[in-house]
Amino acid sequence: MTTAPELPNPDWTPEGWHGPADQPPHPHAGINGWLTDGDLAVVRAQIPMLYINVVPVRIDATGDVTEIGLLLRIGPNGLSRAIVAGRVLYHERIRDAIFRHIENDLGPMALPVIPASPQPFTIAEYLPTPGITPFYDARQHAVALAYIVPITGDCHPRQDAVHIDWLTPEEALSPGTQAAFEDGQGNLIKQALAHLGRIP
Amino acid sequence: MTTAPELPNPDWTPEGWHGPADQPPHPHAGINGWLTDGDLAVVRAQIPMLYINVVPVRIDATGDVTEIGLLLRIGPNGLSRAIVAGRVLYHERIRDAIFRHIENDLGPMALPVIPASPQPFTIAEYLPTPGITPFYDARQHAVALAYIVPITGDCHPRQDAVHIDWLTPEEALSPGTQAAFEDGQGNLIKQALAHLGRIP
Amino acid sequence: MTTAPELPNPDWTPEGWHGPADQPPHPHAGINGWLTDGDLAVVRAQIPMLYINVVPVRIDATGDVTEIGLLLRIGPNGLSRAIVAGRVLYHERIRDAIFRHIENDLGPMALPVIPASPQPFTIAEYLPTPGITPFYDARQHAVALAYIVPITGDCHPRQDAVHIDWLTPEEALSPGTQAAFEDGQGNLIKQALAHLGRIP
Amino acid sequence: MTTAPELPNPDWTPEGWHGPADQPPHPHAGINGWLTDGDLAVVRAQIPMLYINVVPVRIDATGDVTEIGLLLRIGPNGLSRAIVAGRVLYHERIRDAIFRHIENDLGPMALPVIPASPQPFTIAEYLPTPGITPFYDARQHAVALAYIVPITGDCHPRQDAVHIDWLTPEEALSPGTQAAFEDGQGNLIKQALAHLGRIP
Repeated sequence: MTTAPELPNPDWTPEGWHGPADQPPHPHAGINGWLTDGDLAVVRAQIPMLYINVVPVRIDATGDVTEIGLLLRIGPNGLSRAIVAGRVLYHERIRDAIFRHIENDLGPMALPVIPASPQPFTIAEYLPTPGITPFYDARQHAVALAYIVPITGDCHPRQDAVHIDWLTPEEALSPGTQAAFEDGQGNLIKQALAHLGRIP
Repeated sequence: MTTAPELPNPDWTPEGWHGPADQPPHPHAGINGWLTDGDLAVVRAQIPMLYINVVPVRIDATGDVTEIGLLLRIGPNGLSRAIVAGRVLYHERIRDAIFRHIENDLGPMALPVIPASPQPFTIAEYLPTPGITPFYDARQHAVALAYIVPITGDCHPRQDAVHIDWLTPEEALSPGTQAAFEDGQGNLIKQALAHLGRIP
Repeated sequence: MTTAPELPNPDWTPEGWHGPADQPPHPHAGINGWLTDGDLAVVRAQIPMLYINVVPVRIDATGDVTEIGLLLRIGPNGLSRAIVAGRVLYHERIRDAIFRHIENDLGPMALPVIPASPQPFTIAEYLPTPGITPFYDARQHAVALAYIVPITGDCHPRQDAVHIDWLTPEEALSPGTQAAFEDGQGNLIKQALAHLGRIP
Repeated sequence: MTTAPELPNPDWTPEGWHGPADQPPHPHAGINGWLTDGDLAVVRAQIPMLYINVVPVRIDATGDVTEIGLLLRIGPNGLSRAIVAGRVLYHERIRDAIFRHIENDLGPMALPVIPASPQPFTIAEYLPTPGITPFYDARQHAVALAYIVPITGDCHPRQDAVHIDWLTPEEALSPGTQAAFEDGQGNLIKQALAHLGRIP
């Protein structure tokens, strides 16, 4: 959804990813416990892939949103805006996937307040056919559980290809910013702001 | 989660399932657009599978829940209780998956009021390792978007192995009923009732 | 919020309203169990008033919203758009207040599907000072629990001053329709559509 | 709901409370902008009072709840358990009311993460008649917007009559703890835990 195929995927290595380092190895997880890039491509054409989508926000002492964190990515088509997003791995809890992708994209000092409840504010359905839902992904059918996550620390994106900007709600809704999103993700910003009591 | 491996899965045939009959064929969906049973078994061991879970309810004119619909299944281990549950297929919208599985389990005259909003009341994570979450599935890692769906029509389960009973909230919470669920699904009934303003 | 002061308020009579007709009288409710119009005016200047806001919708068999029901009111300032809204009375449950106001505004044959869960999709805060929230009410501080309610029957507004129109989501979001709302209620339509998975 | 009538109410003084100190005075707020104790008693018998209910929690780095903060109050009937709760004042935003009541009950160093979204996880209806809802308040009809609030700082209750204890979810659900709640508030703990993905 946000990672162009040409960019290295931080979750995957040729040797395979073997799960969160802070968890005991899963008894079922052998050498094939997680898919290789090749296998993943095959599966992606056949079943919906489970994703998390995270809208990072800065809030004030009363919880009112002051800024929205938007990634700036350098991809094959040039610069684009994105939110934090990524796959949920086999045997990974949703909250661990949220934590992992925030750490990947915003760095280990972001100090996110991961939602205590698993209830997402919406479900974003990225279909490989445009126009069925507000979201689109040419590569796959991805279904994303969408969360709003307050960030209380400092962000240092780990990857060279990523920068983060903090925009006011008005700036995030501006036509210029909205046009810089791919896959319809600008729509998720509108839905997130509506959920926060702001008018998109 | 609810279908024992030995039971025929109504979604799958040896020839493959080619999507909802009332939708135009998806341009990407060729002969491999949906997985064969064999492929599915392989994939299930490697990525989380996307499910929907539906708690069918009867409500009165003010929306107050009066009864909860629980399936009675005949499986290799004997009788067990279950809610309506099933996979989301490739290129299938969540709301179409909810509709399809209710029709499969409750029949075409159930007249469900499918939720207008995609926001689930919770996410149920069925892991193949017991004890990490309240839910468990020995076969796979399944992540279910959970919805409460009012049923306004008549239920005629399509499958011989399924019967539906309408229980009061108190009956659904009784130790006897709870013990008849597999995979921790009785816990989802408790969460659903809490969400409905009833105390589990 | 939606009733101009000059319009007769169907909930109140000089003799006082004594609660829903289909409920046994509340033991605490004497002649002063509900406020007179005069008392209500005094209280309104001093504490927040509890309201419900209802966005009536038509949905298809899969729950997808097809139309939004908007009231057309004739008030002292001419025609204006509104959603179903009104006060919660002393000793009245939220779900009974939702039912009563829908019946008042849409008639007894509207056959609404009142939400089974008390969780609103948002809280709309109408303050007597403009600009603090997206909502405004010159008369009072009103806090509205906002719900989306599918309507399955026929609507026959009871009051001469009210008409209902069913608009598509696109029509409801059009600048012309939005400009016809008072008190910022057009904003609630945007938030409701965002919650329904449509992009405002 | 949580304050016994005999205890001094920190929000009210004989001279009247004139709103949050950090906000400009409201133009409508004169000497009668907020009710006197006597007026409040009269109003309480006639309209529903708007409250917030807050379940304080400690969460780990992935958002998983580890402890629930329960107040221990000394009242005329002895010790009782309670959550953070209180009225919303005239012209006060919900999020300001949440902040104010947490500061009152947990002290200025509690560093709560106030919810960014106004959507409550449930609505608790405290009626003066027992048995209609799971909640009860002999003094009034109170409708509480219920939120779960992570606490990241140190708690020093401001009032001598209040102590805070941090209990595990299991301890909070134990019959002994549940029996120490008044007004049915133990039920809100069960609903909160269900919303957090824990089974009550």
